[in-house]
Amino acid sequence: MQENDIEKMREECKSDTLRVVSPEMEKILYKKIPMLDHGFIRVIDYMGTDASIVQAARVSYGVGTKKVQEDRGLINYLMRHGHTTPFEMCEIKLHVKMPIFVMRHWIRHRTANVNEYSARYSVLNNEFYIPELDQIARQSETNKQGKADVAMDQAKAREIVDIMNEVSGNAYEKYTHMLNDLSLTRELARTILPVSVYTEVYWKIDLHNLLHFLKLRADSHAQYEIRCYANKILEIVKAWVPFTYDAFMNYRKNSVSISQKCVELNKRMLKGEKITQENSGLSKGEWQEFVNALDLSDFVN
Amino acid sequence: MQENDIEKMREECKSDTLRVVSPEMEKILYKKIPMLDHGFIRVIDYMGTDASIVQAARVSYGVGTKKVQEDRGLINYLMRHGHTTPFEMCEIKLHVKMPIFVMRHWIRHRTANVNEYSARYSVLNNEFYIPELDQIARQSETNKQGKADVAMDQAKAREIVDIMNEVSGNAYEKYTHMLNDLSLTRELARTILPVSVYTEVYWKIDLHNLLHFLKLRADSHAQYEIRCYANKILEIVKAWVPFTYDAFMNYRKNSVSISQKCVELNKRMLKGEKITQENSGLSKGEWQEFVNALDLSDFVN
Amino acid sequence: MQENDIEKMREECKSDTLRVVSPEMEKILYKKIPMLDHGFIRVIDYMGTDASIVQAARVSYGVGTKKVQEDRGLINYLMRHGHTTPFEMCEIKLHVKMPIFVMRHWIRHRTANVNEYSARYSVLNNEFYIPELDQIARQSETNKQGKADVAMDQAKAREIVDIMNEVSGNAYEKYTHMLNDLSLTRELARTILPVSVYTEVYWKIDLHNLLHFLKLRADSHAQYEIRCYANKILEIVKAWVPFTYDAFMNYRKNSVSISQKCVELNKRMLKGEKITQENSGLSKGEWQEFVNALDLSDFVN
Amino acid sequence: MQENDIEKMREECKSDTLRVVSPEMEKILYKKIPMLDHGFIRVIDYMGTDASIVQAARVSYGVGTKKVQEDRGLINYLMRHGHTTPFEMCEIKLHVKMPIFVMRHWIRHRTANVNEYSARYSVLNNEFYIPELDQIARQSETNKQGKADVAMDQAKAREIVDIMNEVSGNAYEKYTHMLNDLSLTRELARTILPVSVYTEVYWKIDLHNLLHFLKLRADSHAQYEIRCYANKILEIVKAWVPFTYDAFMNYRKNSVSISQKCVELNKRMLKGEKITQENSGLSKGEWQEFVNALDLSDFVN
Repeated sequence: MQENDIEKMREECKSDTLRVVSPEMEKILYKKIPMLDHGFIRVIDYMGTDASIVQAARVSYGVGTKKVQEDRGLINYLMRHGHTTPFEMCEIKLHVKMPIFVMRHWIRHRTANVNEYSARYSVLNNEFYIPELDQIARQSETNKQGKADVAMDQAKAREIVDIMNEVSGNAYEKYTHMLNDLSLTRELARTILPVSVYTEVYWKIDLHNLLHFLKLRADSHAQYEIRCYANKILEIVKAWVPFTYDAFMNYRKNSVSISQKCVELNKRMLKGEKITQENSGLSKGEWQEFVNALDLSDFVN
Repeated sequence: MQENDIEKMREECKSDTLRVVSPEMEKILYKKIPMLDHGFIRVIDYMGTDASIVQAARVSYGVGTKKVQEDRGLINYLMRHGHTTPFEMCEIKLHVKMPIFVMRHWIRHRTANVNEYSARYSVLNNEFYIPELDQIARQSETNKQGKADVAMDQAKAREIVDIMNEVSGNAYEKYTHMLNDLSLTRELARTILPVSVYTEVYWKIDLHNLLHFLKLRADSHAQYEIRCYANKILEIVKAWVPFTYDAFMNYRKNSVSISQKCVELNKRMLKGEKITQENSGLSKGEWQEFVNALDLSDFVN
Repeated sequence: MQENDIEKMREECKSDTLRVVSPEMEKILYKKIPMLDHGFIRVIDYMGTDASIVQAARVSYGVGTKKVQEDRGLINYLMRHGHTTPFEMCEIKLHVKMPIFVMRHWIRHRTANVNEYSARYSVLNNEFYIPELDQIARQSETNKQGKADVAMDQAKAREIVDIMNEVSGNAYEKYTHMLNDLSLTRELARTILPVSVYTEVYWKIDLHNLLHFLKLRADSHAQYEIRCYANKILEIVKAWVPFTYDAFMNYRKNSVSISQKCVELNKRMLKGEKITQENSGLSKGEWQEFVNALDLSDFVN
Repeated sequence: MQENDIEKMREECKSDTLRVVSPEMEKILYKKIPMLDHGFIRVIDYMGTDASIVQAARVSYGVGTKKVQEDRGLINYLMRHGHTTPFEMCEIKLHVKMPIFVMRHWIRHRTANVNEYSARYSVLNNEFYIPELDQIARQSETNKQGKADVAMDQAKAREIVDIMNEVSGNAYEKYTHMLNDLSLTRELARTILPVSVYTEVYWKIDLHNLLHFLKLRADSHAQYEIRCYANKILEIVKAWVPFTYDAFMNYRKNSVSISQKCVELNKRMLKGEKITQENSGLSKGEWQEFVNALDLSDFVN
């Protein structure tokens, strides 16, 4: 669908409603937000706003919530205390186009509604994810899970892109050949296509589970490609439920979890004791995590 | 909230939206639909219409769905073939007030979002479900799970109502006494209140899981009180997604499941054979279920 | 792991337990059951037997279940009446190796616990699903979802196998080249591998949800490859919970759903009326489904 | 069932199994652990041990887990990093007897399998939860959600117990009267029973979701009565999966979540700055939570 078609559709389907409306979401509804080389995110529908969370919380927590009089404060309180059910009162529906290997991470989030394009019933397009040259180098340098001891130079990155284009191009050519010339079923023909091929999905999820998705997938440990989608969805959340977005960023996304042992170590440091990995009683890995979590590098060396 | 307040609110919160709108749902939004003696159902929000189901199905089933060109036919097809995921693309949020014993059945449906009024934080109102005189008699006559061998006369029904009023009235009096005069915590004081006391809940669920709820709870085996709510929600579904409602009623709510053995019995009957429980190979219970399912009483006696 | 290693392990880990035991499951525990060309299913653990379902049902349905005195009859009753929660009291854990395109269907069943081999952390083996020659022809002939108007001959099938071997072989060669010679991360290198590559998963699910999985995936509409796995799991279920297996086969797997309209049509036929698609009021598709469901072909032509 | 019957049953059902066995769980299997005045917890079955978590994690995280060579270290790592799926590989089944008001909190945990005693089908016993005298006073003193400004003396507590006994005794008497003398159905008669009446449930849940339950219900904010059950289940978890128990206690149960703002405040304190609520930028509530979380009371006054 062309962008001007979407604009036309946006004009035509304007209606009255008594439901709560998020003006910022209305502005982006149906618009394709490009992702990676062939993908996109499109908001199809939403239910509720920050006010809906407050409304439900005031039923649940009754008297207790009267003390927190304004909505922002109440939402902060709910987020801080792990009162998650009011956030389930908002819902969003996205249309997402992404490579299959991204979809395979995405689908692991079970509390969501999904309708995916079926390659048993329809022919897949000739669209495969090929990373950008710079991205290949960056990912290889920072990725500790891969083999990245050898620095990635531009020549190598270019060879990689060439290989990816060749492998996926060849696979797609054979795919159409098997479909058109050899009468093979779609369900078997598609088995030779690489996991970089793009698929499409309607994905509907409540806000609480969306935030959990974003906590994991906008995290630096998530693979770059799904992180791109997650970061864009974070912007959508900011437009949709701005109080919730702020609370999430402060109290969950950027919060850190400190074990009982580490609370003790921090207290010893506040008393002026010099703490090192050796006298901390922590393993090397856990020590490093502790230093990172409370940003203690200035204090422990 | 008074009904004219709701009307005022309805006027004030009218907005423009680009989302799909169900005109029939807009008419009933926020209005309290009275249930039993103190309860109600109120539609707070909804997402999607019949068109949203079609939209998602056409992504999923692609080419296969082109053959079924009009929306109603496609929805019938999806319902008949158990393709349930497109129905998950619609969502509804209800505000429901019901007795706790009804809530205890309701909450067993796990795939839903729930915020319930908390009797730990707030004081419960003096509102208890007392069945109507006629209902007591009816329920006792038809209920096979209870002891109903002795016919229920009006005098007995009146005594029952008196007992219920006395027990709940006494419990509520002691509840407020313990709260106000004896400084007992709300969380302990409420433990003496009967399960007929009313509670309130915000309940949000997708259409597929709602239909499953309705299949079980609008069924004649469900307790009368939850069935009242389920039947009213069926009317809401009819207003909201009329094609889906028709498909559900025909292919699921009023459909019957026939085992392989019973398909064979039906074929023998079509061939002219006289089938009885004795020569059917079915147990008495299963035979009766078979006769009821295919409405065969005229043919087997 | 070699089969004799498994046998040794089986000997060594024999223990006493007070838990209910399924002797037939003990016989197959840990043994690899080969699937397709490189896959397998292995039972890792199980909880409960038919007796556990009965045990839970007698708590739930109390008095009502006393009438059905023996276990088999009670399990039949539960299955027939859609009382599904007692079946959730049994659990199974499988280790399964399957192609990614099979896994993508498998994972859609959300009520399960999953740990999958990660191609971000580990290198995938050079194992790709290549269908057998005969299977290619069979699948193309019967598959209505693919383009199968042109009969598949052996020469074409052989060409298809050659293409599949070439495409996956080439992809795997480039995969190892990018990993070993070009220092690419595993997470990017694997994106060129086709969805026919094998993955492994630990999969744990309760019996009710397993039966739902089997209802859909052992169905003739499921793709052949996942159907192979589902049919094998059906055999495992038969060994594990034989009463439940029989009840499932009779009342769910091989049962048919008949709409209210079709119940009426069947009654008209029993009365001796000649029913055709034209006078049935059904669409062509629904008529054919009705005839198939009640196996009426002898009576309608 | 009498305890010696259980012992006899324990002797009789001893079997061989190849499944992994937890010796400590075998010791407590089927034994009733008394809870509150009439309740109990009984372990009915379990699947897996710490070793099962490690087994699944090594499949999922492959190479990455080789660095952490011993099981305890790997389980700590998984817990610390929120890798929750391997913990889903263990399952437990409990038989629990508890008051209905406890059950109403319990059932909110949706990812579990439940079979509850049905008061529609069976008659409830004359068993109601009556708190102990001391407990009434303690709960009223510490409970900030109730009205506890007036100190609870023993005389008041005794009056409360008397009221509770009278209200539940009266309700039960009327319940049996309506059942036996007035032919009322069970499903209606039970509506006058208070939520302190005991019910029974078979409850099956995976370890990850059990830990989430324990995080919330063994927390000091949970109502005392459900906390008793949660604390006892914590002991069961310790016997069952000791490494997981330790990791859970250190990294989740007793861990604290620190927001980005509070990490900054802690750094300022480490630099020697005097931080107070006033110069912290935090609300009073959040400040108090921060001080409690990092146990800073010695440093901020």
